[in-house]
Order: sequence, then structure tokens, then C-alpha cells
Amino acid sequence: VSSIQDLRTPALVLDRGVLARNLESMARRLQGLGVALRPHMKTAKCAEIAALAVRGQPGGITVSTLKEAAYFAGGGFRDITYAVGISPDKLDEVASLRRQDVELRILVDDAGVAREVAARGRRLGTTFPTLIEVDTGAHRGGVDPEGPELLEIARVLGGKGGARLDGVLTHAGHAYACRSVEEIRSVATEERAGVVRAAERLGCLGLDCPTVSAGSTPTAVHAPALDGVTEMRPGNYMFFDLFQEGLGTCRREDIAISVLATVIGHCPRHRRILIDAGALALSLDTSACRFSEDIGYGVVVDASGAEVVPGLHVARVHQEHGFVEAREPLPFHRLPIGSRVRILPGHACITAAMFDRYHVTEDGERVVDTWSRVSGW
Amino acid sequence: VSSIQDLRTPALVLDRGVLARNLESMARRLQGLGVALRPHMKTAKCAEIAALAVRGQPGGITVSTLKEAAYFAGGGFRDITYAVGISPDKLDEVASLRRQDVELRILVDDAGVAREVAARGRRLGTTFPTLIEVDTGAHRGGVDPEGPELLEIARVLGGKGGARLDGVLTHAGHAYACRSVEEIRSVATEERAGVVRAAERLGCLGLDCPTVSAGSTPTAVHAPALDGVTEMRPGNYMFFDLFQEGLGTCRREDIAISVLATVIGHCPRHRRILIDAGALALSLDTSACRFSEDIGYGVVVDASGAEVVPGLHVARVHQEHGFVEAREPLPFHRLPIGSRVRILPGHACITAAMFDRYHVTEDGERVVDTWSRVSGW
Repeated sequence: VSSIQDLRTPALVLDRGVLARNLESMARRLQGLGVALRPHMKTAKCAEIAALAVRGQPGGITVSTLKEAAYFAGGGFRDITYAVGISPDKLDEVASLRRQDVELRILVDDAGVAREVAARGRRLGTTFPTLIEVDTGAHRGGVDPEGPELLEIARVLGGKGGARLDGVLTHAGHAYACRSVEEIRSVATEERAGVVRAAERLGCLGLDCPTVSAGSTPTAVHAPALDGVTEMRPGNYMFFDLFQEGLGTCRREDIAISVLATVIGHCPRHRRILIDAGALALSLDTSACRFSEDIGYGVVVDASGAEVVPGLHVARVHQEHGFVEAREPLPFHRLPIGSRVRILPGHACITAAMFDRYHVTEDGERVVDTWSRVSGW
Repeated sequence: VSSIQDLRTPALVLDRGVLARNLESMARRLQGLGVALRPHMKTAKCAEIAALAVRGQPGGITVSTLKEAAYFAGGGFRDITYAVGISPDKLDEVASLRRQDVELRILVDDAGVAREVAARGRRLGTTFPTLIEVDTGAHRGGVDPEGPELLEIARVLGGKGGARLDGVLTHAGHAYACRSVEEIRSVATEERAGVVRAAERLGCLGLDCPTVSAGSTPTAVHAPALDGVTEMRPGNYMFFDLFQEGLGTCRREDIAISVLATVIGHCPRHRRILIDAGALALSLDTSACRFSEDIGYGVVVDASGAEVVPGLHVARVHQEHGFVEAREPLPFHRLPIGSRVRILPGHACITAAMFDRYHVTEDGERVVDTWSRVSGW
């Protein structure tokens, strides 16, 4: 395969030039704010992309599953933060990665779990490097930065071995509910203040807190300052998507991935064009529709990435069918059966996860490489 | 692994006894109506399940992608209908499966495509067995059973070789929009009437029409009669789900799959329990919510399948987090961190596709086998 016209569809296409520009831009921005970048690999799930994302950085990465941790450890990454709250049943697997010399950091927000982590570490003859998750407004996991649980967990982790307190971590997931860049700045300020406050409280106890970790793509892009934060963990910024465009975090031309699909049917009576990318290829993520009704399951452009008619989008999906519609008359003659289109994703993290590989392109057309993705658990 | 308590989560669990009961019940029902069963493997995507589903049947199956066709051909299936409209770029792959002695039937609803199919068949020295797709109300693909396109396509396929007219096919996708069993019966009657009418019109032209194919799970379960139809293609009935329960097509105890997850956090302040199954494990299919607000991304039961509190469900998801909520006070003490829960899927076809294997259980607890799934394109 040397052209996207030869790919079997649906296929996930990654523009290498746009990816490089996105990585460079985030690295430069965080450098300016004096903060290390620990890229979250939950979006890309790909060793080649991780290698590009850590260039000029300390080299640590973030993952969302232990399967990713094992995959990236196999790819030579030795400094990994598993940024989902640990449950005790997963500790044996963490210990097994620790024995392979992986500095795999885990996350707790519960004193009972912290006690089990320490006890298991002692029993297994290992030390689990552990971060305390802090809730700075997202109300997912995490302790109150002002509450007593923070100090209780810190004392457990700083106790009799088996665990080591490495610092604090937060994720401002509520940045995704923002309506303006001003609101994102305000969430970023809250995120910074909360996680830095938690670190200061640990410091007052005489506890070392080397890691003060924050970040989501919106707050990494718009944070006015990051004093006291040691690292940021954005992930989506590598690809961006229509949701991030709606938030004001990227421009449309910064979207690095798209789903290539083939026109398989014309329904002039019902004003739709059918494509071979449906619920499984595009995912069912319609979160970006809050910015425009003309997004649906993704915006449709031609194979070169150019607009066909304004507002052309995938309005409905079945398992393997997409229904392409627009307010304007549909351009049936410009999209004959067999022709190719691209769908820009509403939410890149979820759409990319529907595929097992990237077809890497240059100049939008030439396929220069194939990179595989890790998936599952 | 011998117990579901030892599985790494999230994991897809399949109850073998419920599966067997569902297969048996559909086979018996269609036998009573005098119609063959050509099970749609788009839901299960698994050779072991396909082998069980064709027992006592002619042996043909239905698939939704050419990847499935190649996978099942590799598993010994030789009679396969690819029930998504063909585009000419896929014909070389179809021809390659034809050369492996697979009777791979394709679908057209456009005279131009039919001409390309026949021309390509002649050029490649093969004959493509082809069905004409008929629209009986779903308005996805398909020609009007009363319109001129049906006869035009039939003439092209019956022409100078390269293609062979095998019959007509329809899918009453609009059965999923029904509000009552009465409505499903009426859609099933429309589906039967439309596809049989199309076959009769071809018969009047003196054309042979051996296949008259219909079916969705709701219409297969509720069709009052299927005279003139030669085969039905349900797929979801193997597993069923909360959507089918809402439609009145199954009972809750007929749901054969669930996602096993682990409790990873308690948030009493925000009245939620966090689990390690999120958007990627459960999928974002919330279509079943039209039957109840207490479904969300799936209904939560305990590891044995029993209700914990009424209305416990996954109300929100992030990529790897599920937020379990209920109207009633949450049973934190009964679901400690580290304990296991099961999530019944809203839409089994989409949720199952998030996993690469089934953990096959008996008695809900004992894991007796692991069956892999085909995925991607």
C-alpha cells in the first residue's frame, strides 16, 4: 500500500506532519511554563508515538490500563504512571512489572487500599511507588486537598515499607464541561491550586512529595501558570478532535487522525449517502455535538481532507453503516459509490480505540508506515 | 483461571447455558415457521458460537465485514452472506475468498454497481453470487420492492456472466424503533410482504430467486408468519440485551453476556461508586435508555448476577472509569473496593465488540473455556 486509495476501509489514518506539530507545540508550551511533560498514552496507545512524544522530556509516560503498562514496558519505557485508582486485585500484576525494573507508579485515594498496598508490598518483598489522587473539582476519584484523608493515606504510605509516597496527582476532567477559554483557565487555576495545596500539606508533615502531577489537554493548553506543578499529563493533544476544536483548544487543521471510509450506497429519496464506517469504526461518541448539530458521529470531508459541502456529517450509524447527511442538497455526483471520504472524529481517544493500527500518511495521501496500537485489558 | 473471581477486569463473560437456551429457542421457533436460520455472526464474531448456532440448520451464516468472512472461511464455513452493500473496491477480496471455494454472497442495490460486479467477475474469471437488497421500511440500503430498479438490477445480474442472481434480501432495522410487540409484528409483516413481493416480481420475469432472506432479532422472534421467506438472519438473539428486553423480545434472564468489573473507588460525597469499566469496556451505546433512565451504560448486578439494589446502573463513563449510581442510597458496604460486579449490556453487539475474547462460564461462576472473537476490518 502506498496510497490511501489502496487501503481496505474503514481504516484509521494518521497524518505524521500534524502529529509532529502537535507534539512540538505542547512540548514548547510546557517548557515555557517550566513543567515536565509526562504524555498520557491512553489516546495513542502506540510505542512509536510515545517515543516521539517524550523527545526532549524526562521520558516518563502515563497509561490508563495495566495492559498498556506492560506493552510500553516491553517497548523500553521504564517510568510509567498508571493513572487510574488501583484495586488490590491488580497488585500482583503491578509487582510483576516492578520485578522487570519498571518504575510503575500507582494511584490511591482510600486509606484502606493504601494499607493493603503497603501490606502486599511487604509480603511480596517489593515497594510500590504510590501517588495520592486529589480531587480538584472533577469529582471522579481523589481525596479533598483540604481533608483529613490526604494526611491519613500519606502516613500509611510513609509507614512500615511496602509502599513509598511519591507525591500527588489530579485530573481536571471537568475542563471538558467548560463553555469558554476563560472557563478553562479558571479550571486550570483550580487544578493547580488544589494539587499544589495537597503537596504543601504533605510538606508540612515533613513528608517528601517529589511529584505534583496535573493535567488534561484543555488545562495544559490554557493554564495561565503552573507554579508548584512538576509535570502535566495531557494525551488527547497528540491528535486533537472536533470536541477540542469546539472547546477552543485546537484548530480544525490540528486534527491528526481521521477514519477513511468508502461510499457504499446512495439514497436520494431519504437524502443520505451510506458509507462503510458505522458504530464500530467511528465509535458512538457524540459528545462534540454540544458544539454543533452538524457533527453527529463525525464531520465528513473528501479523501484529500477538503470540504465537499458545508455541514456534511455522519448523522446516524448502524454497526457497519454510516448515514451521511447535510442540510444542503447532497453532492451525490461528487461522492459516487466506491469513492473515498474521511471522517474527522468527535472524540479521538474513543474513535482511535476502535482500530488496531494507524496508517501513517504524509501529504494526506501517501502511506509511509503502519503503526500498531495496544488494546484491551 | 477457574473462577470469575480470578479474571483480570474488565472482562467479557458469556454464560454457556443461557447461550444454548437462546440458540435452541430461535431454532425451534423458525423450524415451526418452516424457515431456515442463517445466523448473523456480527454480534458473536466467534467460530465456536457459529458452530453451535448452525446446528440442525443448513450451515450458512451471515457476516457484517469481509474480515469476518475470511475468519469464518478459515474456520470451515463455506456458505456466507456478506449482508452490507458491496462497493467495487472490495470485489478483489471477495474473489479471493471465492477462489478458496467459499460461496460468498454479496449484496447490491444499484444498477451501476451490479454492472461493475458482473464486469469484474468476467474479468477475474469468477462468478459473484449476488442478492438484491430490498428496502422494506428501514430506509438504509435497498431498492423499492415495487420500483423499476429491482428489475433493472436483476437483468444486469442475469446477463452476460460474471455475476449470478441468487435472490433478494431485506433487513427490518426499523423494528428497533417499535414501542410494542404489536408494532414489531406489524413491521415483521411488512418485511415479509416486501421481500416476498420482490421475489414474485423477479419470478414474473422468469428469473430464478432461490433466496428470499429477511430478519432481525425482533422480527424473527415476533413474526406471525413467514410464508415465502426462505431464511431469517437474526444475530443479537444469541446474547440478547437490555434493549431487547425493553422491546419485549427477551426476558432479563435470557441475557447471556455481561462485563465483569472491579470496584476501584467510593465517593460517598458525590453518591457514586467507581468501577474499572468505562467507555472502552462498556461502549457508549445508551440506546436502551429509551426504556428506562436507570439503564445508562448498563445495569449493575453483583458477581453472581443478583440484584444489589434496584436501579443500580452505570450513569456516566470516562475512558476507563464507570460511575455507578442509583436513586436509592448506594450499598457501599456490599460493594467494597476490590469487589466484583457485572454490568448487563444495553446493546450486546456493540459492547461485545469492545473485547477480543469471551470467558465462558457455567453456573455463573466457573470459567470453563475462553473463546476468541474476530474484530476490525
